Amino acid sequence: MEAENHVYSTFETVLQVRPDDIDMNQHVHNSRYLDYVLAARYDQMERCYGMSMQAFLDRGFSWYVKVAHIEHKRGLVLGDKVRIRTRVGEVRRHGVKVVFEMLREGDGKEVAAGYCDYVMVNKDNGRPTAIPEDVVAKYSV
Amino acid sequence: MEAENHVYSTFETVLQVRPDDIDMNQHVHNSRYLDYVLAARYDQMERCYGMSMQAFLDRGFSWYVKVAHIEHKRGLVLGDKVRIRTRVGEVRRHGVKVVFEMLREGDGKEVAAGYCDYVMVNKDNGRPTAIPEDVVAKYSV
Amino acid sequence: MEAENHVYSTFETVLQVRPDDIDMNQHVHNSRYLDYVLAARYDQMERCYGMSMQAFLDRGFSWYVKVAHIEHKRGLVLGDKVRIRTRVGEVRRHGVKVVFEMLREGDGKEVAAGYCDYVMVNKDNGRPTAIPEDVVAKYSV
Amino acid sequence: MEAENHVYSTFETVLQVRPDDIDMNQHVHNSRYLDYVLAARYDQMERCYGMSMQAFLDRGFSWYVKVAHIEHKRGLVLGDKVRIRTRVGEVRRHGVKVVFEMLREGDGKEVAAGYCDYVMVNKDNGRPTAIPEDVVAKYSV
Repeated sequence: MEAENHVYSTFETVLQVRPDDIDMNQHVHNSRYLDYVLAARYDQMERCYGMSMQAFLDRGFSWYVKVAHIEHKRGLVLGDKVRIRTRVGEVRRHGVKVVFEMLREGDGKEVAAGYCDYVMVNKDNGRPTAIPEDVVAKYSV
Repeated sequence: MEAENHVYSTFETVLQVRPDDIDMNQHVHNSRYLDYVLAARYDQMERCYGMSMQAFLDRGFSWYVKVAHIEHKRGLVLGDKVRIRTRVGEVRRHGVKVVFEMLREGDGKEVAAGYCDYVMVNKDNGRPTAIPEDVVAKYSV
Repeated sequence: MEAENHVYSTFETVLQVRPDDIDMNQHVHNSRYLDYVLAARYDQMERCYGMSMQAFLDRGFSWYVKVAHIEHKRGLVLGDKVRIRTRVGEVRRHGVKVVFEMLREGDGKEVAAGYCDYVMVNKDNGRPTAIPEDVVAKYSV
Repeated sequence: MEAENHVYSTFETVLQVRPDDIDMNQHVHNSRYLDYVLAARYDQMERCYGMSMQAFLDRGFSWYVKVAHIEHKRGLVLGDKVRIRTRVGEVRRHGVKVVFEMLREGDGKEVAAGYCDYVMVNKDNGRPTAIPEDVVAKYSV
């Protein structure tokens, strides 16, 4: 089940900063960067891995964030677009580690980098559940 | 079922502005005032009407916002507390009109005023449903 | 200065629902629809009226929401896109009334409709200020 | 300037979960936990360290989040209160590491734990700036 030494694909999603993301420092509010990563993953789940979040929910699964780690390099401001690069870092029995990098669209300067550990859960009781083989296969691109 | 000419009670909830509520204008972001009204209603549902949102959900109901109308008088800033006064304006077959007023704690100056029309729905299909008599009774204080 | 009997242009912006917009009812959270309207206006300020929000800020102006009125028709869900149509309803001395309509992308069904009264303010003290003639001209397309 | 081997005080703030914090999984949305930490720090800056965020802003300073790391143990739900314990982990030349723990009010079960590295910046240009001695003193309780 482990996919060691596997090199996973990197996928990209470009998002537009929304005015309601801007905080008192005139930057995107720090916790919103994690929402951007989430949005990028949802987009990529459907577009790049071939299984949308809705498809997970329909099968009785959901994904919880277990660990989030983010290092901020420079802030995004009103009008910016951001390119979010993510790749699977590791597929585990009950979850997936996703590594991300955020670049400012236009000049490509680094905005933030980090990782999230997601755990797959049974949607009804929130308990961790083993990732089905077909999902592991989809994520092993 | 109509409760015409009924004078409904006014209830109050005091909330502390959170830093993530502040936007680029150094004020609470305009849409967050509606979130404050929502928070006040949830508090009051349990504390003042004797039926928490969870109790509604447990009975298979939820509340949707049908109409929201808000007039902003002055902005709340970092460190402010706000007193949210709400009262039922009208109880209808499928919903409740709630009138609200928001006052800055300390000097009592008006922050905003408006109303929300809430509709009661079946939680599973989102369809409007008649408000049960016992709920009408609870809301008729 | 009044622009009576003027028929203003309608502009459109398409937005993708973000996962962090979804609330406990599995719909876009009610107050986020107003954030979508705001995002559409910011996009259109630059793209359709030829003066970005940043350009307003650079000239010492900002826009506050004075009144927001929204009627929800149907909820947006995860994966949806929404088409936001706005047009100037009236240009006043210190502000602009903007009428909006939101349609679900794909089937064009109505999601919400309403209006916002924006007031132009001096960015530094938050006081209402007369809209400069050149801005009135830009908004009179 | 380094405060090695110093044992810093732990301070606590209790927050009420707001309905708009709940996401599609019926839990507080993952990025909002970081907003709770921020709210706790703002509260404690004023109440426990004797220098409010506003006082920092008035002196031309602001605080940026450089690194955020959070491990989620269990989700908060509608109606929950959360106790946020924070303490200074390290005072550096340009910033402060803050360690936090979040406990569910009532049963005291662990909700999340982690740390944030904050950097002090010049409010006007966003550049890191050395923490003034009097601030270091205030933070060394």
